[in-house]
Amino acid sequence: MLIGKVIGSVVSTRKNENLVGSKFMIVEPLKEMSKQAEKIIAVDNVGAGIGEIVLVALGSAARIGCNMDTAPVDAAIVGIVDEKPQL
Amino acid sequence: MLIGKVIGSVVSTRKNENLVGSKFMIVEPLKEMSKQAEKIIAVDNVGAGIGEIVLVALGSAARIGCNMDTAPVDAAIVGIVDEKPQL
Amino acid sequence: MLIGKVIGSVVSTRKNENLVGSKFMIVEPLKEMSKQAEKIIAVDNVGAGIGEIVLVALGSAARIGCNMDTAPVDAAIVGIVDEKPQL
Amino acid sequence: MLIGKVIGSVVSTRKNENLVGSKFMIVEPLKEMSKQAEKIIAVDNVGAGIGEIVLVALGSAARIGCNMDTAPVDAAIVGIVDEKPQL
Amino acid sequence: MLIGKVIGSVVSTRKNENLVGSKFMIVEPLKEMSKQAEKIIAVDNVGAGIGEIVLVALGSAARIGCNMDTAPVDAAIVGIVDEKPQL
Repeated sequence: MLIGKVIGSVVSTRKNENLVGSKFMIVEPLKEMSKQAEKIIAVDNVGAGIGEIVLVALGSAARIGCNMDTAPVDAAIVGIVDEKPQL
Repeated sequence: MLIGKVIGSVVSTRKNENLVGSKFMIVEPLKEMSKQAEKIIAVDNVGAGIGEIVLVALGSAARIGCNMDTAPVDAAIVGIVDEKPQL
Repeated sequence: MLIGKVIGSVVSTRKNENLVGSKFMIVEPLKEMSKQAEKIIAVDNVGAGIGEIVLVALGSAARIGCNMDTAPVDAAIVGIVDEKPQL
Repeated sequence: MLIGKVIGSVVSTRKNENLVGSKFMIVEPLKEMSKQAEKIIAVDNVGAGIGEIVLVALGSAARIGCNMDTAPVDAAIVGIVDEKPQL
Repeated sequence: MLIGKVIGSVVSTRKNENLVGSKFMIVEPLKEMSKQAEKIIAVDNVGAGIGEIVLVALGSAARIGCNMDTAPVDAAIVGIVDEKPQL
């Protein structure tokens, strides 16, 4: 998993039906964790807000671990980090 | 998932039979999202057109989330983004 | 998926039994598609020849989409591109 | 798999219910193994401590190989390395 | 899949029980194949020795294709390459 900051959200009205109701957040990995800060779009699974530091799961883990087995989701916010790690 | 712009399409007449009927689009990730803009080929699942900003799912999510479980597809356009995010 | 050029092949006599009969091709992603041209070894699923421009599926899509569910294959050539895209 | 050093841990009180009880460690891949030392968050499966050199499995292997099939986990510490390899 | 050279091995006494009996090899991708030579740890499935040029499968292909469905393995050596490809 990776740790990042929620920096925004994205709205998509015309989308795959298995995505209806999903909230898409833009997450920027912490610079201390990754030099190449490639932002990702993750479905929110825990009620994260903009500015929060979150734990993101990637790949089939996002889909299966968040009860979205049949949705085209490859990234999900699965936790709010209590305190930003000092690295 | 990632956000990108549809910049073209690709035609393949001789292909795996599970790909018959699929439309292959070339998607360029937004520069604001990713520094290393590696273009990808994604199957269109929502009727996206060239120039549109789209949401792309990668890996098994593309295949399973778009009812193409047995097709060799690792990327799919699963949403049209209403408005390009300001980052 | 990605688009690349078949630039060679690899022979492996001593290999996993589920790979017997597979043909391993070396594919170089098109430079217009990817700056970091990391070559990959893909199993040929469509009868591709050296010099041809092909569509490659990665991950579980290669294995499951080409009826090689139990083979250790993570990349497969799944289409011959009719015409190299102008990017 | 990759080899890295455990350099810290992360606490998340508000998280996906399938992650309750999991311990999240920050692992930094060995520089001798990877030039781009992107740190990752891995669930501890073997009782690893800070400073230890560990083996990390990524993707579905982490989830399925550690009996966490339904948890949103994409990385797990699956072994303590006896001796840091000389490379 | 990728092609690399076996340059060493790693021993882990304290590990996930599904890894007992596995032999972990360090594989360095061929420079001709990949500019960013990120070394990986792969389970040996074909009896590869140090110095040999091998074919490595990544992701679920390694686990499922080598009859290690329930092991936390994301990379496996699945073939010995007869002759190093000239690229």
